[in-house]
Amino acid sequence: MRAWQFVGTHKDFERVDIEEPTAGPGKVVIDVKAAGLCHSDVGILEDEKWLENMKELPVVPGHETAGVISEVGEGVTDWKVGDRVAVWPMAEFMGYMVNGAWEDRAEVSTDALIAIPDDVTFQQAAAATDAGMTSVGALSTAGVEAGMKVGVIGFGGLGQIGARVAKLRGAEVYVAEINEAVWDRAREAGATQVAKSISEFADAELDVIIDYAGFGVTTADALKAVKAGGRVVQVGMGKLEATIDTYSLILGKKQLHGSVGGSKEDIVETMRHIASGDLKPAITEIDFEEIPAGVQQLADGSVVGRLVAKVAD
Amino acid sequence: MRAWQFVGTHKDFERVDIEEPTAGPGKVVIDVKAAGLCHSDVGILEDEKWLENMKELPVVPGHETAGVISEVGEGVTDWKVGDRVAVWPMAEFMGYMVNGAWEDRAEVSTDALIAIPDDVTFQQAAAATDAGMTSVGALSTAGVEAGMKVGVIGFGGLGQIGARVAKLRGAEVYVAEINEAVWDRAREAGATQVAKSISEFADAELDVIIDYAGFGVTTADALKAVKAGGRVVQVGMGKLEATIDTYSLILGKKQLHGSVGGSKEDIVETMRHIASGDLKPAITEIDFEEIPAGVQQLADGSVVGRLVAKVAD
Repeated sequence: MRAWQFVGTHKDFERVDIEEPTAGPGKVVIDVKAAGLCHSDVGILEDEKWLENMKELPVVPGHETAGVISEVGEGVTDWKVGDRVAVWPMAEFMGYMVNGAWEDRAEVSTDALIAIPDDVTFQQAAAATDAGMTSVGALSTAGVEAGMKVGVIGFGGLGQIGARVAKLRGAEVYVAEINEAVWDRAREAGATQVAKSISEFADAELDVIIDYAGFGVTTADALKAVKAGGRVVQVGMGKLEATIDTYSLILGKKQLHGSVGGSKEDIVETMRHIASGDLKPAITEIDFEEIPAGVQQLADGSVVGRLVAKVAD
Repeated sequence: MRAWQFVGTHKDFERVDIEEPTAGPGKVVIDVKAAGLCHSDVGILEDEKWLENMKELPVVPGHETAGVISEVGEGVTDWKVGDRVAVWPMAEFMGYMVNGAWEDRAEVSTDALIAIPDDVTFQQAAAATDAGMTSVGALSTAGVEAGMKVGVIGFGGLGQIGARVAKLRGAEVYVAEINEAVWDRAREAGATQVAKSISEFADAELDVIIDYAGFGVTTADALKAVKAGGRVVQVGMGKLEATIDTYSLILGKKQLHGSVGGSKEDIVETMRHIASGDLKPAITEIDFEEIPAGVQQLADGSVVGRLVAKVAD
């Protein structure tokens, strides 16, 4: 079957034909229909530190997976051939510790399976498993619920899902985004107010602020702007350090929480909002054979919406 | 009656005779027996920002108060004349928003009252209300409980109470203290290991770390050293900013919480350990008339243990 393999940092992905997997006990095989591409797929090509959390090479990348079950292993009773499923990437760290979605068929643990609602396409489901999970997972880390005032920093790929789902959870949403070109879209997503910096909302008594950008100063500004007793959740990694004011942190009994990934429930919530039409993540579809070109586009910063490769019809 | 008054930043405390308070509804009057001195009493003399959280001047400072009830106001049923009581300083912000302990008699809300156990002296009770509350309050913010591995940064006035009470809660305690002269006392308090920097415990899988020092680098080192999913609690304000590694914060799903003060329960816990003999905070007693000299000693850094003024026998 077809697969793309990662063979080492600073080396091109290799297009190979490998043996088809079979379903071991407690596992299933999925005919992959859609496989997402992620900025971390640029990361693995460029930075050797990713190797620390990866099985022996080569590995098939791809941690956004949606498809149809084509085989069930011994002891699997809750799932059957023909089920449309998405994969929670954190169960087995698909694409890192086990082979990922950039192949025709993938073996997956049932612990990782999530049923795809009828009104959600494979492409949308794939995007829900990481872009959705990470955005919504940060809301869960923040404890966002109805009636809260929520600040969102960065209205990019993750922030626009986060802002929208916070609104759908019943929160009042304040968006800080440096790029004024997307302010109208932030308002359409339900933002009560939009500004260039979260500092402009310092008097709004924000209960939580989620920093999807992560440029150091955004973390610091968020900790100053959040209300006393409030929580800042850090997701974005635009810059890997931040200089924060500990006086405000201590006297305000504030909290800063790191958030990475999310739970199966976060993916289920994302797909529920997609199914109802309340959430419409922008997706650009490419062909399976175009995956390396797509990763290059991500590296160049020229992608609009989430890149998802069609693996099969 | 006798009182010391704070009349303005950069001005000496004034020794005055003021009218005795009477007990309003829901309040009592206490004959003050012991009144603690705190580094923040140096702060109010030196830094005008303290005025932001203070009633119109003059105000009687002192937020560590222990004494005997001499009058009860209308509607007070749970307390009676003769009760030995300590005062939770955060109920009314004694010494800031209302007159504090540096006077013969003080009017106090019953919301703030805590009964002093028989085996606890007035001096010990006074020290328990802030030095104790703040140290133990940080343990509460950290969620310290039996079986946890707890890092303590700084074995000074607060850290030594925090380390000891963490041990008494059943935790395994790791102390980071730059001053080797106090390492033996840290071991006597029950520390499993003592080192110069918390970074030396990076492999110990510490569940929480409490930074009683707060020199910026201590916050950063604590966030790196704490285990994935772990929590750092910031109490110390040695320096008012910290440059932290957000990569480790995010990928480790770590938390940083500011902590200031504490609850009545934290004071009760402190006094229970003093009563049983398990906790022996060092106290230096001075006379009421020596209070300004005591504050100067605090400013000079020449004080050993907590300074507590005897107001009456």
